[in-house]
This record gives sequence, C-alpha cells and structure tokens, in this order.
Amino acid sequence: MTPDEFRRLGHQLIDWIADYRSKVATLPVRSAAVPGAVRARLPATPPEQPESLDALFRDLDEVIIPGLSHWQHPSFFAYFPSNGELSSVLGDYLSTGLGVLGLSWQSSPALSELEETVCDWLRQMMGLSEAWSGVIQDTASTSTLVALLCARERASGYALGREGLQSSGKPLTVYLSRHAHSSVQKAALLTGIGQAHIRFIDTDAHHAMIPAALEESLAADDGKTTPCAIVATSGTTTTTAFDPIRAIGEIAARRQIWLHLDAAMAGSAMILPECRQLWDGVELADSLVVNPHKWLGAAFDCSTYYVRDAQHLVRVMSTNPSYLQTAADAKVKNLRDWGIPLGRRFRALKLWCLIREQGVSGLQARLRRDLENAQWLAGEIAKTPHWRVLAPVQLQTVCVRHEPPGLDGASLDQHTQAWAEAVNASGKAYVTPAILDGRWMVRVSIGALATERQHVEALWDLLQEAAA
Amino acid sequence: MTPDEFRRLGHQLIDWIADYRSKVATLPVRSAAVPGAVRARLPATPPEQPESLDALFRDLDEVIIPGLSHWQHPSFFAYFPSNGELSSVLGDYLSTGLGVLGLSWQSSPALSELEETVCDWLRQMMGLSEAWSGVIQDTASTSTLVALLCARERASGYALGREGLQSSGKPLTVYLSRHAHSSVQKAALLTGIGQAHIRFIDTDAHHAMIPAALEESLAADDGKTTPCAIVATSGTTTTTAFDPIRAIGEIAARRQIWLHLDAAMAGSAMILPECRQLWDGVELADSLVVNPHKWLGAAFDCSTYYVRDAQHLVRVMSTNPSYLQTAADAKVKNLRDWGIPLGRRFRALKLWCLIREQGVSGLQARLRRDLENAQWLAGEIAKTPHWRVLAPVQLQTVCVRHEPPGLDGASLDQHTQAWAEAVNASGKAYVTPAILDGRWMVRVSIGALATERQHVEALWDLLQEAAA
Repeated sequence: MTPDEFRRLGHQLIDWIADYRSKVATLPVRSAAVPGAVRARLPATPPEQPESLDALFRDLDEVIIPGLSHWQHPSFFAYFPSNGELSSVLGDYLSTGLGVLGLSWQSSPALSELEETVCDWLRQMMGLSEAWSGVIQDTASTSTLVALLCARERASGYALGREGLQSSGKPLTVYLSRHAHSSVQKAALLTGIGQAHIRFIDTDAHHAMIPAALEESLAADDGKTTPCAIVATSGTTTTTAFDPIRAIGEIAARRQIWLHLDAAMAGSAMILPECRQLWDGVELADSLVVNPHKWLGAAFDCSTYYVRDAQHLVRVMSTNPSYLQTAADAKVKNLRDWGIPLGRRFRALKLWCLIREQGVSGLQARLRRDLENAQWLAGEIAKTPHWRVLAPVQLQTVCVRHEPPGLDGASLDQHTQAWAEAVNASGKAYVTPAILDGRWMVRVSIGALATERQHVEALWDLLQEAAA
Repeated sequence: MTPDEFRRLGHQLIDWIADYRSKVATLPVRSAAVPGAVRARLPATPPEQPESLDALFRDLDEVIIPGLSHWQHPSFFAYFPSNGELSSVLGDYLSTGLGVLGLSWQSSPALSELEETVCDWLRQMMGLSEAWSGVIQDTASTSTLVALLCARERASGYALGREGLQSSGKPLTVYLSRHAHSSVQKAALLTGIGQAHIRFIDTDAHHAMIPAALEESLAADDGKTTPCAIVATSGTTTTTAFDPIRAIGEIAARRQIWLHLDAAMAGSAMILPECRQLWDGVELADSLVVNPHKWLGAAFDCSTYYVRDAQHLVRVMSTNPSYLQTAADAKVKNLRDWGIPLGRRFRALKLWCLIREQGVSGLQARLRRDLENAQWLAGEIAKTPHWRVLAPVQLQTVCVRHEPPGLDGASLDQHTQAWAEAVNASGKAYVTPAILDGRWMVRVSIGALATERQHVEALWDLLQEAAA
C-alpha cells in the first residue's frame, strides 16, 4: 500500500473509529454472537488476488462489530476496565506507523529512552522511591512470570547457569493467597514449580492474606523446602482485596524470600495519594507489576514491571549473540534483557501521549470519579432490602448479591447466575459473575472511561429489574 | 480525549505517518543519537496539567525521529526486516481503536474467530497440512518458550500438575544447533533446564545441523538424561541456514522427542511453493513458529505459533477461575489457554488486512523480488576480487566479507568492523556485523518493503567504497 492510499484509507479509518467511539453506547455491550457465527461468515481460504480495502469497512460493520463485546462501552462493568484512552490510541498509532523495533538500544535509541522516561514518570506518579526501575511488558501474566523466574534463580543460586532447577536441591515453594489471580499460579507452574509446591495461604474476612497463616505455612516448610517467592496482591480480581504488604514484606525480609506484588489493577490508584496506605510497605517488595492498560487508560497492551535489582533481572534474562552486539552496549540499557521477548514495540508512546494529554491531575480526577461512583453504588445496595455488598469497596469494584427470602445454597446460586445472565443478555450492561466464599455473586467493576454516574444509576435499576 | 478531538488529531497523525513513510528514504537509516541524548531532552517529571497534543508532533520531529533507526527505510539491511505494510498498519489501528480485549471467547467472539481464521489462511498459504492449529503470540522468543514448556511437560509426564520439574527424574536435555537463535537457549534456560543440559549440535559447512551429530549427542545421553526437545531452524539468524528437518524429524520420531521448528524468518518464504523443499519434513515437527511480522509484512508484533496437539498445549497453559468461566466455554477456543498472557489484542486484524490487500499473489511477488535481489547481490560480490560470499544464499540474506591481501585473523576482523561501522555511520544503509566461524563478517539482509533493486545496487557501491 502506498503512503497515498494509506492517507486516503487512514482518514476513513480515523472517522470510522471516532464514529465507533461516539456510538458505542448504543451497541449491546456483550456480543450476542453464537460460537462459530463469525467464522462462518469469513472465507475459509485466503484471497489469491489483492482486494480493495474499501470492502473492509463494510465487513467490519456487518461481521466484526456484531461479534464484539464492547470494552469501551459506558456500561461495561465486567472483568476490570481495559481503557484505551483516545490520546493513548494515538500514541499506539504512532508506534505502529513508525514500524521501528527495539532489539537493542542501538536499533532505536528513542524507543528505549522514552520507555525509561515514562516508566520513571509513572514511578513518581505512584509515589515509589528511586530504588525502582521499570520496563513495559505485555501483560501482568508475563510480568509475574518474569518475577517468579527471577525469584527461582535467586533462590536456587542462579541454577540456570549450571544444572538447572532439577539439581537445585530442596523443592522450591511459592506462597500466594487463595485470592491471588490465576496468572500467579500459572506463572509458578510454568517456572517448573509443581502444583504440590504452591502454597495457598488463607485469607481473612476481607479476603486479604493473613500474615500469621503465611508464617505458619513457612514454618511447616522449614527445612523441607526452599521458599522461593511470596506473591502479594493489591486489588484482587474477585473483590479488590489488599494483602497487608508491610506485614508480609517483613516476613519476606526476615526470611530473605522474594516478594512480588501483583498490583495489576490497584497500582493505577496509587497516583492518588489518599490511596497509598492501601499498599503500605510496598518498598519491601522485590518486584511489582502495575497495568496502565487497565484503569489508567493506556491502550492495551501495556503492563509495567518494576524491580529493585535490575542487575539480577538482566542476569536471568540476558542473551548476547554477536549479531545483537553494538558499540553502545556498555553505556545503555538493552531492554531485550528485561523480559522474555527479544523484539519490542515502541509501547512507551502510548503512555507518553496518555500522561501528557491528561496530565497527572486529569488522570487523578477520573479515578476519583470512579471511586465515588463505586461508593455511591455500594451505598444504594446496602440500603436496599435483600441486597448485599459482600466485600469492602476499597477501590472501584462492588461485589453484590441479591438474597431474596427463601433462597440459599444452590437455589441462591441459580438465582444469581440467572439474573446476571439476564443483565448480560440484555445488552444493556455487562457484569461478571464469580464465586466468593463458595457462592456465586456478581462483580460490578466500575471504571470504563465513558462511565458516568448516570450509567451506574441505570445499572442499579437494571440489576433490580433483572433480579425481581 | 473526545472522539472529535481524536478525529482532528487522528487526521493529522495519518498525514504525519504518510509523510514519514514517504520521506523515510531521506533520513539516516541508523540513528546518530548518543546514549542519553533523547532522555536528556525529555522532562524528568510527568506533567501535572493536561497538555495539548499539538505539541506532540513537534516533539516527534525534533526529539524522537532523530533518535530512531528507521526499519521501514529502503536501505535497511540490518537484522531481519520488520515490515509494517501500511495495510497491516491500518489493521492494527482498528485493533487499538476498538479497544476490545480477548480474555475468553465470550469477551470478544470475533477476536478469537478471526484469529483462528487468519492463522488457518496462513497455514494454507505455507502448504501445511490440516493437522496444524495456529495462534498469534508476540514474538518467536515467546513462541519458542511456549514450545519448550510444552515439551518439558510431555517429557516429564505433566510434572507441573504434581511435584514439578525438580522431582521429574533424570535431567531433561534440549538439543539445538550452534546456529540456533539466542532465544532458543534463553527459552530452555527459562523453562528450568540448566546450561549444563543444553546440547549444541555441530553444523556442517553450510551451518546446518548435522543429523549424525545429533544422533551421537543423543546416544551419549542415553540412560543418563531424558531428552526433552530438539529445536531445528529454518533460516538461521546468521546465515539463513536450513537444518535438515526430515532427517532430524525421523530421529525425533524414533525416540519420541518433541521437535520444535524455529521458522521465524523463513516461514514467510513457504508461501512460495518453490521454497518449500527447504523445510521438507516439516510435518514431522510437533510445533513451529513463523513470524509474519518479519518479512511477510504484518505490523509488529505478530508471531504465529502452530501445534499438532492443541489439547496438550491447552493442558499446559490453561487456567479456569470462576471469573473467567462462561456458558460458551465447552463450545469454543479460549485463546488465553494457548499461551502465556491472559489478555490479548485483536492482532488478527493486522494479518487480515495484510493478506486481503496484498492477496497471496501480491505477497508472493514481493518475496520473489527480494530473493532475486539477494541473488543479484551475491552474484556481484562473487565476481569481484577480494570479496567473498560466505554462505549459501538460500533466502534473502547475503553474508559477505572483504578480504584484501595481507589481512587475516584479528586484522581482518578490524577491517570488517571498521567498514561495517563506516557504512552504518554514513546513514546511507544499515547492515549487521556478526561472527561466523570465529571471524567477523557482515550480514546484508534484503527484504524491507521499500527495497528495490536500485537500493541494493547503491548498497553494493557503498560497501565497496567503505571497504576501499
């Protein structure tokens, strides 16, 4: 495609996306597509001859859009928000359009240096000390895998340079709460630590890890295993519970165990000074992950991974074949040695554009709006008969159940799943059912960019209708 | 940012990118930036107040562009090409603008189903059998890590479900050629297999793995280790050598060892029927990776990973917490279980747009152009005194050395590095020095989108000037 054709179609695309964002509120939030419906409308074989992309926009409207659940919809209350702020979208457009690649610093100096800069901006915004260095990964799943790989190598005395995990002595064990995200367990398994050596620590009434239970678990392993890592969570997926970092960090420090903090969701909130007590003790962690591509508004994918010992990270991750060596290597950071992939997109641009266009104050204002909306909804639910808020609303997620008289156990579960499905099938809002303490409930995760109070009010009406 | 502001700035951005692509040939290919220069021009602290993004384009021109090496430049002959075809760029723009996320099929049905469709298109384009299922990963580094994790779990009888790698008996060993990409060794180390259990198999005069040497290495390990995986390469990074897949695959089949094929670069060439003998025996592999984001033209990142046993992949990678369960799960593919990250971009769009706009025939024509340009350059070099082509030119990369009388050993290395640096410092072309058989040489990797014969001719003049 020539630059001139790109210009013509590109303008069309910008208008199409602007129109999409303008009208997204009128679309059903969750797609009504049935399995296989989209694929059935696509050609089973690739086109032999070039096609005009003018047909593309028709296919998007007719085939793709009906097959999408709309994450940028103001009534998207499912999962956690994945906000693609339009300023950040433009930053990502620059990255893709420039088509430059980071393999080494030399292969695109500005790509590396802007990444260092914006990661440091975000560090300052979250009130973290200068001891932290950051890098952009794709997702928290990957960041946590990188953390556990680094923990494994520290606990094993860098076994990968010798005979590997198999010859590293006593079994390595990993400690996480029962409410840690599924990706933590997955990461532990992928590092080579078996299911039998993952310790699920009990949580308190608010679903936060109990430090005494962690101590007990560690004591039970004393002499039998080598504790490899403790993973604490700031903002669990089910209820946005906050593990007590300081108490956990003190245990980790005393026993010299790697502490990784999964703040994928709640890290964004730390740009609000009033929220920072929620991760009190964060400086005791060895590594942490925050996903600006969630609530903060960076276009997906943009997960920031921070470490205190960057040299250790590089030691675990580095490779240095001749074809990647450059004269600048001694003087620069080669970000390929800060994670798993060799090549990297110019992802810093989307964070750069977001922070500049919104300003720290603009980002703070939006997050405060969402916190207030969540408090408002929790208040309404709490004062309504037969409705219950099931967990402290410390962030922007409200866990709710309708508990009409006469229902409990399996019948209550059926009721919950039925009204949640009714809400989602209506296309008017999208919420996530999940299991809490053995019973189904519904998570209302507030914080899509477009979600104003009126949308939360409409949701509350809808929940009551659906459950009635 | 409102949709209307996005519209205004988006149009500006499209023009800016179109202008960039139009004028990229006039920019120095390799950035002349010195370490720290870009960062020094960026504010050390984030902006408190919102800024107009109108200033952005000025900063891009003044700060970012001079700090970039230009991968879309017609005289980019470094590394391997990372072609962001403008049609594919538009596909990526759609993805970012839509801002939808794949967590489960339900969370964006069209995202999953288009990914299945285009991966299957590419399978057909490369002449692979229907036994293969594909999924998009970020890079070959990650795809190969996924492959070795799957191999580890097959060799250990799914140890991650029990006591993990530490209790899996005899040491697992991985076999790769001395010319395998650095990411293969990195992946093996990250899976927990130590350096001591990685076997580097000797290569022949053409830098391809010697099957008999592989047999010898396996025989030496007999009874002492559990062979976990053999990694063969189609198109090595240094010289685009092709390991003999059929012979290697027969060994792997006889011994029931996982065979992973790294065809990150050369896989694209397999859309040309005349190239397919280069990976004869490919159907014997268990997994393979092809990077459409290299030569084929898909905007980075887009690495396709194919497996024959998708169930095994899912068994190793799956997680199923309540908040990710949906009613459709039994009937669909949840691509989160096909790799490491949970969330995924709508990456299929960039492959869809590329293949539609170019057509298979258009892609084939461009690749053939590059193969011919490489043959032309190799011919010129071969007939010029004191110049030597150092490896068979089976693809689009030419390995070259200027060997003037009187120079050898270290003095020849000095000469090579000096003229390569002169080429790169000139800004007129960008090539990659690398070590082959213990001596520095220069890789000329042809295949940037914009590279026509005239650019290869100009490069050849430049090489001769620089070496004179």
